[in-house]
This record gives sequence, C-alpha cells and structure tokens, in this order.
Amino acid sequence: MPVVSSKGNAMPESPIRKLVPFAEKAEKDGKHIYRLNIGQPDIKTPIEAINAVKNNTLDVIGYSHSAGFESFREKLSSYYAKHDITISSDDILVTTGGSEALIFTMGSITDPGDEIIVPEPFYANYYSFSTQSTVKVVPVVSKIENGFALPSINEFEKLITPKTKAILICNPGNPTGYLYSKDEIKQLANLAIKYDLFLISDEVYREFVYDGSEHYSILQETELNEHAIVVDSVSKRYSMCGARIGCLVSKNKSVMQTAMKFAQARLSPPTLAQIASEAALEAPESYYIETVAKYKARRDTLVAGLKEIPGVKVSLPKGAFYCIAELPIKNADHFAEWILDKFVVNNETVMLAPASGFYSSPDKGINQVRIAYVLNRRDLKKAINIVKLALEKYND
Amino acid sequence: MPVVSSKGNAMPESPIRKLVPFAEKAEKDGKHIYRLNIGQPDIKTPIEAINAVKNNTLDVIGYSHSAGFESFREKLSSYYAKHDITISSDDILVTTGGSEALIFTMGSITDPGDEIIVPEPFYANYYSFSTQSTVKVVPVVSKIENGFALPSINEFEKLITPKTKAILICNPGNPTGYLYSKDEIKQLANLAIKYDLFLISDEVYREFVYDGSEHYSILQETELNEHAIVVDSVSKRYSMCGARIGCLVSKNKSVMQTAMKFAQARLSPPTLAQIASEAALEAPESYYIETVAKYKARRDTLVAGLKEIPGVKVSLPKGAFYCIAELPIKNADHFAEWILDKFVVNNETVMLAPASGFYSSPDKGINQVRIAYVLNRRDLKKAINIVKLALEKYND
Repeated sequence: MPVVSSKGNAMPESPIRKLVPFAEKAEKDGKHIYRLNIGQPDIKTPIEAINAVKNNTLDVIGYSHSAGFESFREKLSSYYAKHDITISSDDILVTTGGSEALIFTMGSITDPGDEIIVPEPFYANYYSFSTQSTVKVVPVVSKIENGFALPSINEFEKLITPKTKAILICNPGNPTGYLYSKDEIKQLANLAIKYDLFLISDEVYREFVYDGSEHYSILQETELNEHAIVVDSVSKRYSMCGARIGCLVSKNKSVMQTAMKFAQARLSPPTLAQIASEAALEAPESYYIETVAKYKARRDTLVAGLKEIPGVKVSLPKGAFYCIAELPIKNADHFAEWILDKFVVNNETVMLAPASGFYSSPDKGINQVRIAYVLNRRDLKKAINIVKLALEKYND
Repeated sequence: MPVVSSKGNAMPESPIRKLVPFAEKAEKDGKHIYRLNIGQPDIKTPIEAINAVKNNTLDVIGYSHSAGFESFREKLSSYYAKHDITISSDDILVTTGGSEALIFTMGSITDPGDEIIVPEPFYANYYSFSTQSTVKVVPVVSKIENGFALPSINEFEKLITPKTKAILICNPGNPTGYLYSKDEIKQLANLAIKYDLFLISDEVYREFVYDGSEHYSILQETELNEHAIVVDSVSKRYSMCGARIGCLVSKNKSVMQTAMKFAQARLSPPTLAQIASEAALEAPESYYIETVAKYKARRDTLVAGLKEIPGVKVSLPKGAFYCIAELPIKNADHFAEWILDKFVVNNETVMLAPASGFYSSPDKGINQVRIAYVLNRRDLKKAINIVKLALEKYND
C-alpha cells in the first residue's frame, strides 16, 4: 500500500480536533454547547453583499482574472486609502481567503528548510501553512503578564540565521487580541531592514480595535515598501468567513509577480464571493461602528466575567475578538475535554480551544485557553458561568 | 532588498503569458479576437445552480465543514453511483476547484524531491502545482501520430525510481482530448500496484466523451482502492469555472485523513459556490446530453476544418474539449504572437495556445498548438478560416 508523505504526516491537526468527538457526543445527548472555540462570528453579513449575490445576472459563472476582478481591486485600493494606506490596485492580489494569501506568500519567499520567526502564541494555521511549504516556524515567546506585547527586539535578533526569510505577525492578534503599537511596528520595520527580511503582517482584524486605539499597518511604513507583505481578508470584517476572499498586498514588485504565478496556476479566486465582497465595501460606516461596538461590549463582559473567577488570569485584549485566559488547572486539553464530556449546567456546556495548539514550543500555554467572543453578551455570561462552576467542580 | 525564493523563481508562467500583451494591443486596436486558447466554455451554467444562489437565505456567509457541506458530499456520492463508481461521502473532500484537490494530493503524498510521472503533453498547471510542492515532474512522451494514446508501460517502468510516488493522468485529456481505454486504465492499475505507487486521475471532463465511447474511471478498479486518487471539479461539467469547487476522492483512508489536515488549515471551501454546485447536481439529464452534443458538433466542425488546411496534422479527440494540432510552421509561439499582432481578416483574429507550455521536455511540441472548442460553430468556422489564411501568409 502506498503511504502518505513525511510532510503529510507532519501536517498538524486542528487544535480542537481531539475535542470534536466529545462535542458531537454532547450534542447527540441533547446538550447545548456555547462555542467559544471558533472565530465564526454571529454578526450579520452586510445586506449589500447578500443582495449583490441575490441580484447577480450571470448566466455563466466564469473565471475572473487570476488576480481578481479589476473593479474589486480598485475599490480595495480606495478602502485602504481610508486607512491611510496608499496602495494601487496593482499592489493587490485577490486570494481565496487570507489562507491562500499566506500560502502564496510562503511559496513566493521561502524554499524548503527556510525559517520564519513568529511571536507565539500564534494562529495555529501558520504552523500548517509552514509545514505545507516545508518551512520552519521559529517561535519567539510573548507573555500573558504584559498582554502578549511584542517581545524585545533582542529576542528576535538571537533567532535570526542565514535561513531566516521573514517575521510574521498578526495585528491585532489571533489568539491574543494584542494590538501592536506604532512604536512596536517601527521596531520590527527597522529589524526587517537591518537583516533584509520580509515583514508579513496578517491584518484581517484591522477594524476591530477598542478603547480609542488606532491600528498601525506595516504598509504605513514607507521605508518598508520592499519588505512589507500584508495578508488580508473579508472574512471577519464583514462576517463572511465562508466567502473565502482575501488578498495579498505588497509594493514589492517581484513578490507580486511571483505570487501571481501561484495565482495563475489556480486560475481564479471564487467569482460569486468576489461579487459579494466587492459589494460589502459599500456597507455604510454604521456597519463597522455597530460591529465594533458589539465586540467591545462582549469583550468587556467576557473579561469582567473571567476576572471574577478565582485563579483565572486574563489581560484586556485591545483588538480582534479573542483572548487568552490562563486557568487554575494543569492541563487545558484535559479540562476542555472533561467539560464537554462530564459537565453541564441546565443541560448546557461550553467548548474552549486549548491554547497549546497556538504555541509551537511544546511546554507553553498548557494551562491556557483561547476564547472567541463571537456570541451575544447573554450567551457569553452563561458560558462564563459554566466555566466558573466547571473549574470549581474540576478542582474539587 | 529581500528577494523571492528559488521556488518562486521556478514557478512557471502561464503558457499564454507572453501572448497577453499582443492580445491586449489587438483589442485596443479594435480587433475582435476568437479565443481558442482558454478552457472557459460559453455554455450556460445550469439554471438550478444560478437560482440556488439567487434564492439563498443566508444572513451570515459562514464557514462550511472543512470537507464541504455533508449534504453536498452525499449528493456527490449519488452522482458517482450513476457513473458506476461506488464512493461514500467520507471518501470525498470538497476542494476549492480541482486545483486545490491536486495541491492537497501532492502535499499529502510527496516530499520535496519526490517524482511524479506524467504523460506529456499535460495540463500546464500540473507543472505549477509540482513546483509549488517542490516535486519533480517526470514526463513520458505521448505522440500525436496515435492520438496521444497511453505510451507503453515499458516506457513508464524505465522512469520509475525510489523517488517515484505517483503516476498522474488526465482522462479524458487536457490538452490532448485523448480518452484512455479500459484496457489502458487496467495497465496503469497493474503498474501502480506492482510498484506501490499512487495513481492520480484528473477526471474533470468525465461527461465529455464522444462517438459512443465510455469513460472508465480509476475508481472502478477495485484492486486499486488504496492507490487511486481522483481529482474532480464542477468547473467544466456545469460551465461554472468561477465557482471554484472541486473534490478529491479516494478510498485510501490515510490519504483522506492527511488531505483533511490541509483542508482544515484553509478552513472551508467557498460556501456560496457550494450552494450553487450542490444545486447543479439537480440539472436534468437533458443538460448533459445537450452540452455533450454541442461539444461533439463543435469538435467535428473544428477537426474537419483543420484537416482541410494543407500541412496541418490533427487527431480526432475522443473527449474533453481540446485538441492538439501540429502546424506547418517551425515555432508556434512565434506564430501565435504574429497572428495576434499582424494578421486580421475583416478586423478579426485568433488567439491560440502554443503547445510548448504543455510539455516539460524543452524540445517537444514546438510546432503544435492547443485549440479549445468552446466557441459556437459559426465562430469556430471563422476562426479556423483565419488560421488557414494566416498560415498561407505566414509561410509565404
């Protein structure tokens, strides 16, 4: 029997993979699960996007340009201009989700065995895409004690080798909710220039920043033009994760030309979803304002609730819609299984994402969970109460 | 300035890339171009698919299961049953086009430096996906003289090394239009079993077979269960290339589990396009019959027209909607440029795909072109006439 490859074997499983059978059993047993484990928002997709799809006049669902519809890329360029990012439509390659933008980026800038430095905890799929590209993720540890702020530049410098091709950040961060300051971005920019590295920034949560903070994009650093690669997506911004539309943005012409060869190979990003995504850009300012207000209120509810649980450590996320909480337990993988399998309050339970899956160092984050605040506040409160009571029972 | 990777540099350009500026100039000059170069059909997408999208009731365009909607996979299983292919929904992984099915397949079964044997000429993007996976394509040459039939098994055996992981075929073939016989498939099956290789079959043109021929899938060879991997797509079957929905089908559980890890990393195939694709399966039998009849008539028109041109060699394609024609010229790349740039009949010209891009051997196919018969017969006749007159002038 022919066997799968070493690469295939090395592909990591989803961090919640082991929990899925427990969740399925719980649901089969009629339990309701509050899903704090995934980044699938309940916010409605802009009606402009839904209507554009409903009113489409295609009679052949044909390929688009491999870089995406020109009209869409031009509107994206205007969208970026509103965020003080000067980008032409030629600097934008429409991709099948932010995922594909990352895969194209890794393919374009790395060869097998190359290294990318990533502050951890990081979005688990960075590890998958790196494995897919046979690239080594080199983690630099950020800490819950200071809200997962940027580790000192010295820590990065220690890890740079001739194989290092890029530094990859997520800003604001999944799973940490940390928003990098302008000063931190400038420090990273200087480092990328000093060592001739690419700086890749996953900015899919750009709009979701709270408490009057401002998002500062690596594309606003003009000295970084040849180094900066931004990964973006409509998934979270417009609550249209299933559209699978993202983009890769860079002013580095050879990166864009190379990424375009990957894009041509897969022919076209999805047409219907591009129609929806282009129309979503017409959503009124109120859509963003209301969405951000909702997430902020949820964040406040979540963090206040978690802080009331004895022994729980949590820092206030400044952006995105996740936080990492440290629990008064030894092993969050086991606790997350146990709570789904054994614990109910009024026949309800919760699903948490153990944070170990967001670290590549094997000994990190084992008593932490990632919580996505993508539920309404009423449900969030109930879910937090379940976590609180579960911890009491579990530690009893 | 940081630079792109060796892999990025090695990514091939689209075979018609060099022609694009000439086509753009021709259109700018007001010339009409008959596009014989691409596989974008003019056939209408089934109304069932269009209506499903128009009538969708989503208010959040959310992720689907990473393997695709269960309801869609179950209907796909019934679709395969109609083609005498016994496959459960668990053997099907919905992908973002056939492209992604190939990328997942290569990722799951190959490590950098591994080899895949492919009869050439082959679909140009096989080379791109191999480069993306740092896998070596080892070509085995098929010949226009016998309609691009399967080369002798002996030719394959000569190329097998410890690095060989799979044989990849396209059946019926793009760009050749060749339909492998049941006997040829059985020969390949025996070879795969003898050397413990995977046999990958791209069957996206399954329905498009002519003259009473029958398509024989590798999935019909039960001894091949652990070896067979089928790449499929709705793009051509339902003329919905822009949906970007395909699937990977295999009864090899470890291949499916591994491919699923790649699928989880990119989260979900496109939701709206899955809705369209699931509904397309409800298209009546008449849709297939009419579509195939159209392509057959076009094929006959094309081949008859080409045979009338002195010095042109062409074999009758038994399937798909392409043929390879050998022209009485030295270099088809130059001829294809010249015709776009310098030649018009009543202000109309044609775009051809030089076949060199479908061979990995550098000296093969240089006087051949691939012609896609995705235009109506009236336009096809005009286009062939332009080719005929162009050859006369070019060779004058």
